[in-house]
Amino acid sequence: MKKIGIVMGSDSDLQVAKKAIDMCEEFGVPYEVHVYSAHRTPVEARDFTVNAEKNGFGAIIALAGMAAHLAGAIAANTTLPVIGVPVSGSNLDGMDALLSTVMMPTGIPVATVAVNGAGNAALLAIEMLALSDEDLSKKLKARRQADMQKVLEKNAKIEAEFNR
Amino acid sequence: MKKIGIVMGSDSDLQVAKKAIDMCEEFGVPYEVHVYSAHRTPVEARDFTVNAEKNGFGAIIALAGMAAHLAGAIAANTTLPVIGVPVSGSNLDGMDALLSTVMMPTGIPVATVAVNGAGNAALLAIEMLALSDEDLSKKLKARRQADMQKVLEKNAKIEAEFNR
Amino acid sequence: MKKIGIVMGSDSDLQVAKKAIDMCEEFGVPYEVHVYSAHRTPVEARDFTVNAEKNGFGAIIALAGMAAHLAGAIAANTTLPVIGVPVSGSNLDGMDALLSTVMMPTGIPVATVAVNGAGNAALLAIEMLALSDEDLSKKLKARRQADMQKVLEKNAKIEAEFNR
Amino acid sequence: MKKIGIVMGSDSDLQVAKKAIDMCEEFGVPYEVHVYSAHRTPVEARDFTVNAEKNGFGAIIALAGMAAHLAGAIAANTTLPVIGVPVSGSNLDGMDALLSTVMMPTGIPVATVAVNGAGNAALLAIEMLALSDEDLSKKLKARRQADMQKVLEKNAKIEAEFNR
Amino acid sequence: MKKIGIVMGSDSDLQVAKKAIDMCEEFGVPYEVHVYSAHRTPVEARDFTVNAEKNGFGAIIALAGMAAHLAGAIAANTTLPVIGVPVSGSNLDGMDALLSTVMMPTGIPVATVAVNGAGNAALLAIEMLALSDEDLSKKLKARRQADMQKVLEKNAKIEAEFNR
Amino acid sequence: MKKIGIVMGSDSDLQVAKKAIDMCEEFGVPYEVHVYSAHRTPVEARDFTVNAEKNGFGAIIALAGMAAHLAGAIAANTTLPVIGVPVSGSNLDGMDALLSTVMMPTGIPVATVAVNGAGNAALLAIEMLALSDEDLSKKLKARRQADMQKVLEKNAKIEAEFNR
Amino acid sequence: MKKIGIVMGSDSDLQVAKKAIDMCEEFGVPYEVHVYSAHRTPVEARDFTVNAEKNGFGAIIALAGMAAHLAGAIAANTTLPVIGVPVSGSNLDGMDALLSTVMMPTGIPVATVAVNGAGNAALLAIEMLALSDEDLSKKLKARRQADMQKVLEKNAKIEAEFNR
Amino acid sequence: MKKIGIVMGSDSDLQVAKKAIDMCEEFGVPYEVHVYSAHRTPVEARDFTVNAEKNGFGAIIALAGMAAHLAGAIAANTTLPVIGVPVSGSNLDGMDALLSTVMMPTGIPVATVAVNGAGNAALLAIEMLALSDEDLSKKLKARRQADMQKVLEKNAKIEAEFNR
Repeated sequence: MKKIGIVMGSDSDLQVAKKAIDMCEEFGVPYEVHVYSAHRTPVEARDFTVNAEKNGFGAIIALAGMAAHLAGAIAANTTLPVIGVPVSGSNLDGMDALLSTVMMPTGIPVATVAVNGAGNAALLAIEMLALSDEDLSKKLKARRQADMQKVLEKNAKIEAEFNR
Repeated sequence: MKKIGIVMGSDSDLQVAKKAIDMCEEFGVPYEVHVYSAHRTPVEARDFTVNAEKNGFGAIIALAGMAAHLAGAIAANTTLPVIGVPVSGSNLDGMDALLSTVMMPTGIPVATVAVNGAGNAALLAIEMLALSDEDLSKKLKARRQADMQKVLEKNAKIEAEFNR
Repeated sequence: MKKIGIVMGSDSDLQVAKKAIDMCEEFGVPYEVHVYSAHRTPVEARDFTVNAEKNGFGAIIALAGMAAHLAGAIAANTTLPVIGVPVSGSNLDGMDALLSTVMMPTGIPVATVAVNGAGNAALLAIEMLALSDEDLSKKLKARRQADMQKVLEKNAKIEAEFNR
Repeated sequence: MKKIGIVMGSDSDLQVAKKAIDMCEEFGVPYEVHVYSAHRTPVEARDFTVNAEKNGFGAIIALAGMAAHLAGAIAANTTLPVIGVPVSGSNLDGMDALLSTVMMPTGIPVATVAVNGAGNAALLAIEMLALSDEDLSKKLKARRQADMQKVLEKNAKIEAEFNR
Repeated sequence: MKKIGIVMGSDSDLQVAKKAIDMCEEFGVPYEVHVYSAHRTPVEARDFTVNAEKNGFGAIIALAGMAAHLAGAIAANTTLPVIGVPVSGSNLDGMDALLSTVMMPTGIPVATVAVNGAGNAALLAIEMLALSDEDLSKKLKARRQADMQKVLEKNAKIEAEFNR
Repeated sequence: MKKIGIVMGSDSDLQVAKKAIDMCEEFGVPYEVHVYSAHRTPVEARDFTVNAEKNGFGAIIALAGMAAHLAGAIAANTTLPVIGVPVSGSNLDGMDALLSTVMMPTGIPVATVAVNGAGNAALLAIEMLALSDEDLSKKLKARRQADMQKVLEKNAKIEAEFNR
Repeated sequence: MKKIGIVMGSDSDLQVAKKAIDMCEEFGVPYEVHVYSAHRTPVEARDFTVNAEKNGFGAIIALAGMAAHLAGAIAANTTLPVIGVPVSGSNLDGMDALLSTVMMPTGIPVATVAVNGAGNAALLAIEMLALSDEDLSKKLKARRQADMQKVLEKNAKIEAEFNR
Repeated sequence: MKKIGIVMGSDSDLQVAKKAIDMCEEFGVPYEVHVYSAHRTPVEARDFTVNAEKNGFGAIIALAGMAAHLAGAIAANTTLPVIGVPVSGSNLDGMDALLSTVMMPTGIPVATVAVNGAGNAALLAIEMLALSDEDLSKKLKARRQADMQKVLEKNAKIEAEFNR
């Protein structure tokens, strides 16, 4: 199976990145985690990216905050799907990272998820891999069922508490 | 080859959707175009979506403006990758559609692109299909080369005009 | 008397929903509380809604955060008045939920209240029911009087403290 | 049948108000149109409002731009449901009117619709009246069907044009 | 000397209002503090305002949060200068109160200060009274001198610590 | 009578400043118009301001766009009331000028009006002068009456057109 | 004299870039203009940048819109001062480009100017070069004088027109 | 070597200013720290600035919050490069200070860095000084190397923890 690359712009993004890591673990999807900065280690970020396809990656998740260029910088160097996770910082509530990640010019797409939405980034990557992996597709459907079940259980509990 | 679904919330989004249609044409990727509204035709939108996988779709692009629920409503009913295109309206400059599309809760991802960024939405869908289609992957790389070439030509023209 | 439906997108919205529940209790208006997610349990949300009118509901209050589609998704399936409560999340200060709830396209109205304003959502629903319920109308007027009285008492206290 | 009051803060809001007027006409619902300013004619606005219930109104739609206080000022003087329409002005894209209309404190609810969304404001008022008017309720459902039909026709046209 | 009216929309604004009260105390300017809500006690707010001029007030400071209508509602009923203080609430960081206070239509001016800027509101009122009160004008200038002195002292301390 | 100073940061602000000029003319209040830039002519701006009080000014209106420092720079050099008019530019819709004008630190107040709200700026200045000028006060009240009358006339016209 | 590099992310930025070009011409400062995209020609952008210092550049001005990564990408590859010009696009009013340009993480500074503020970008670069170029420093001061003179002339004209 | 001036609008900005001070210390660059307020000590701020060039300064860093005029006020009085640091306050998340600092009109440039980004402000000043100081230029490059090394070490640690 193809691997999912999880790249953080800074190790301070690890707490958010953990949501993607946990999702990959939950699905048993192979993944690699790296810290590469678009600005501090542009060469390493580029080297990782230009070799990602031949190194067996199927999608790359990039997490970054502030003027979040990492996802775009990675997308510029690969035609693998790149998923951007805007990470909220101490100011501007993540709006800076969101706009820096999502407003990409035509030609270099970045699939952007919610601010700090690394769990969905992993799910999106898994959905892509599942396009050619029946087993993974079943797992995704099972997870949806389980999510639904959890909501129904919560509903049952709330209904029992409030509706007489 | 799997098809790309292009779904508009309103036929007023057609001008933006055309960018996705043209990209699919350019790549020779099969696609279907539909107008389904999350609010006005929820049943049809749902029927299309729950059957999308078995009907041969590999990714769905959803375009909508204002309180843009279409991409999320589609994502709720399939585990195919769903790509959301926020469409700008007459007020608020597309910020309403952007936040309505991108800020999805964990479990139901939407791959969001820039406001009106339907060309990139199609490229993203094609990148996903290219994961298991070597030919498509080559076309993507060739397009990047061509894009690069266009910038270099523009650069040459600008350099000739301004640098003496 | 018709019932008020109070639907949360997630049980994490309960703290906000409690303000609506308490208001219904205060007015002695029958209500039901449910957890249905537009994204995780779209079928249940829809089933509840399409049957709401014949099940005796007079208005539905929908609470949701982030890309808050719940109110719109409910409004799409009923012609009962639907009241949307945008719930603030950990980022963007509720602006995402506000725009996702209020910016509905023509044809599918959602009566939107302030971020986390579930008390007013219930009051709005009660005002609607009071259109054909003289007793409820009197209670609303009495509450306004009481509210006014509370402000006047606070005023008296502040005046006593600061104006010599 | 109870009347719908349509109150503009300025006659420059008439173009937006027309959407509400047309909707009332379409449904055959009685309505009255007035120009009262929360700031320039506070007495008249108040007189209209405190007498609205006994004058046969069932809901009041208030349209205003900028620091849009009209809906709140009306809501402060009646327990009829008040629907606020934020009107966009020459600056700030309607965000000022939206926040001024929707962010009401607990006790004085305003049912807010989208910026310039006067058509939905009327629909919302009609939904309220329809709670005790079976005929109106049927008309609302018929309009939904018609709206759905229009989208399906547009879909058919788009499908015929783009899907081969 | 004319009095300064300090009116809060809610006693929860007292902490902010205290900055205005303290400033009046510092200058020995007579003032009155009241809690009147534009929405919950519109009659009392209006009565206070229409009589303010003949009751000896020279300026009115109005503090309110969220859809902050108080300053505008007061300005609508007097030609005394009205100073609006937007108070920040639990959401939207005071932007709602700022726009609701400052974006007044031509004819009904509100002199708006910074979010929570009640100290400056009082200074502004005192500057107005000082137009016909030489003594007050001198005190204002003395305070500016003192402010300047404080900055210079802080500068001296910082310079001593950091510049060798 | 004291004069009103109307200072523009750039002659491109003249169209907005005209609203203040016209208002002064309407009230027969003496005024002076100047173009001084906080950044391009700081010395002249300062000289005008430090001498404004002894030169017979009672209030200063400052108009500026973008990083609108003019009102603050003037306020820093006088204890006369300073009124700031944020002027909208080609980007950011006046939000930059609004925040730059209104968010003044304690000690140096600027009475801020709406974006491009120069008419209200003049009214505010006139309200200040009217504190010690009974005649001016009467004119202000008469203008309010006239404004009210205009709204009532518009109302009559709209009522005649729409209410049968 | 060191050269100023003017790099556009797209030739559609030329109209804005012209302001920088014209300023360089006005000062007689050598410059080069290039079109390099952080995303479409990352290799060329990098090659230009890593060699900029030895190729005689003293500062680099980077213009880009949307998710404007160009200035940051250039700053990542040189320790020359890099000046970022956010260019406004068809949506979001330049706020996306502004935040993408200015919110750089510590270590990789970008000197950001106003949206579309390319003239100031060039002035900033010239101020840097003038640190070791007395002649350039004099020209800068002369330009300030001329700017001041222009404002004073406009002031004289306005004063003549409006002040009697 | 030329000195870097670090000017705070208030001593409450010291915590942010410390990042600039520490950076100057790290590079062994001479600097001076001052507290001058554009509003409270305009004369001192101006005196410092007009003499800065002849007093041996090569760049001035100005830190201020709210309606942050300090950088612009300094830039108005010198042709030395001025670097503005927007400081976040208790409301509006630094957006007020950012727009007040960066949106300068043509002619008076301010090199703006991220909200609270004083470290980068110092780096930018050092980059300017390094244009004519080979030794400083080497130190900048060494710091980049060290920064890169730190990221690589963090990467190694994360890789060791997560990649098996």
